[in-house]
Amino acid sequence: MPYLQEKVDNLTKPKGSLGRLEELAIQIGAIQQTLTPALHKPYHVIFGGDHGIVAEGVSYSPAEVTPQMVFNFMEGGAGINFLARQHGFSMKVVDSGINYDFNGLENLIDLKVRMGTRNYLHESAMTREEYELCIERGSAVVDECFQEGSNIISFGEMGIGNTSSSSMWMTCLTGIDLSQCVGAGSGFDSEGVKRKYSILKQALDNYKGNGSVEDILCYFGGYEMVMAVGAMLRAAELKMVILIDGFIMTNCLLAASKLHPEVLEYSIFGHQGDETGHKLVLDYLQAKPLLFFGLRLGEGTGAVCAYPLVDSAVRMINEMSTFKHAKVTKYFE
Amino acid sequence: MPYLQEKVDNLTKPKGSLGRLEELAIQIGAIQQTLTPALHKPYHVIFGGDHGIVAEGVSYSPAEVTPQMVFNFMEGGAGINFLARQHGFSMKVVDSGINYDFNGLENLIDLKVRMGTRNYLHESAMTREEYELCIERGSAVVDECFQEGSNIISFGEMGIGNTSSSSMWMTCLTGIDLSQCVGAGSGFDSEGVKRKYSILKQALDNYKGNGSVEDILCYFGGYEMVMAVGAMLRAAELKMVILIDGFIMTNCLLAASKLHPEVLEYSIFGHQGDETGHKLVLDYLQAKPLLFFGLRLGEGTGAVCAYPLVDSAVRMINEMSTFKHAKVTKYFE
Repeated sequence: MPYLQEKVDNLTKPKGSLGRLEELAIQIGAIQQTLTPALHKPYHVIFGGDHGIVAEGVSYSPAEVTPQMVFNFMEGGAGINFLARQHGFSMKVVDSGINYDFNGLENLIDLKVRMGTRNYLHESAMTREEYELCIERGSAVVDECFQEGSNIISFGEMGIGNTSSSSMWMTCLTGIDLSQCVGAGSGFDSEGVKRKYSILKQALDNYKGNGSVEDILCYFGGYEMVMAVGAMLRAAELKMVILIDGFIMTNCLLAASKLHPEVLEYSIFGHQGDETGHKLVLDYLQAKPLLFFGLRLGEGTGAVCAYPLVDSAVRMINEMSTFKHAKVTKYFE
Repeated sequence: MPYLQEKVDNLTKPKGSLGRLEELAIQIGAIQQTLTPALHKPYHVIFGGDHGIVAEGVSYSPAEVTPQMVFNFMEGGAGINFLARQHGFSMKVVDSGINYDFNGLENLIDLKVRMGTRNYLHESAMTREEYELCIERGSAVVDECFQEGSNIISFGEMGIGNTSSSSMWMTCLTGIDLSQCVGAGSGFDSEGVKRKYSILKQALDNYKGNGSVEDILCYFGGYEMVMAVGAMLRAAELKMVILIDGFIMTNCLLAASKLHPEVLEYSIFGHQGDETGHKLVLDYLQAKPLLFFGLRLGEGTGAVCAYPLVDSAVRMINEMSTFKHAKVTKYFE
């Protein structure tokens, strides 16, 4: 998009002096194929699901926290809620496969596939039919946001045990050794991380699938994670800007990119956390995160927190004067 | 403030999982001495001034750009303007000593000390009386913002040649070698930087003052820079949160901290640019900048751009549920 670069270079500032804001403006202009990009009705979608592997003790937090946090989201008291309110995000919370009966809880979107995945230490977490259902349902959620006028969307998750599934996807899809993909999750000490690793290593050794992307996602995946993959792919198809946060959502994008690499062109990485695994998968994707804030909450907090920076980029390209208009000496070649 | 830490630790998230947001919330709570901090009427003040040293060719941009950009600020087309509009900042633009007759331009605050400083290659940039005047006038501008109800303030500058003055302050106040304090300013190539360095080295060798902080600020300073120093000191006295941006404003804070170290407790660093000198002075101040965005525009863009992150921190501590209230299992020790 040479025209986009030219427009940015003629704004009243030394060339390149708005750094990352300039890069973001050019990326979003390219996504929307316009010199005057605009962001409409930002949406945040949280997919929730439980994981059979939690029975093996791979998570610091008990599984009951998944539904408890869903209630907290619905009541507006969680980390993601204040950020969504601050930045004017609409929110959808989806039950992709939480091991709890919500009894038609108002505003919770019931797309439950099953009461949690199977335990992949012994068998595939989901069936191929369940996988296809997740891809479809994730895609349909994005369609609804798009129909409401949204052109920028971020994703988050709630699912005790899903850092483990993410580590499994990561090692299988990137070839990075499992030991570098496993971290503390919501609070393990180094002993806990070791135990988590040894269980996941066992699960990896037990895996006898065909090694295709779909098979890996099926075998180790969470319902909430595969829905996020379907959602990301659909968002890219609809030429929406996708905001990515955290270890789990970054691995979902990794999975999506293995199916359709173009999804990366639509993605903006909100945040890089302190965990080695997150940094490695971001490096693998050649991602340049916007924030380094030490967040490790999930829920999509790192994506929504970074939204005003993306908004700044769009305002820059639309609102700044050009040298000619402002009668400022263009002080660069 | 142990109570602030306790409050943050009881919000519904794994301990420490909101990283920098938690640190910011605790800092602002401590500044305001409350468990429920609030930000009111954010203000951005730009001080403008010209520099006699520019006659020696130390700047890539011609001096005429200083008044041109002031007109651009007043018309709302500069980089800082769209950011101020985005984040609801009121703005004051101050003529501290610009070498141009604005003829009472509406809304420009006329605190002009002189038509630019003297050339410090040969003599002191300002007199001691001018220095005192700048400290007073900078302080008075902050008083006005405070009286309008502001408790958070950021500062920017416009002054062709002021990266040179900043480099001189930095080397004299920190002991870091001048060669590490000099950068490209608004666009020099490596030849230009070398020439700039050799002129500044000559100026440093010519300096025969008493080496006190005040004398260094007088000798090499810009009027806009000393006004910023006075403004920062007054903001801290009034217990306002101070947002710091860029190489020049960071050196103004450095100078302020040499007069009254407590000013650092009130300061939040918006951005670290790519220049070595900026990184070194931030390290010297043990600053932890919020953004690494490759900005080098000045005007205070890096401070105002980071404002929503500070706002997020305040919202976090006020709006998130506690574990007890939300009935979520507290999943950490």
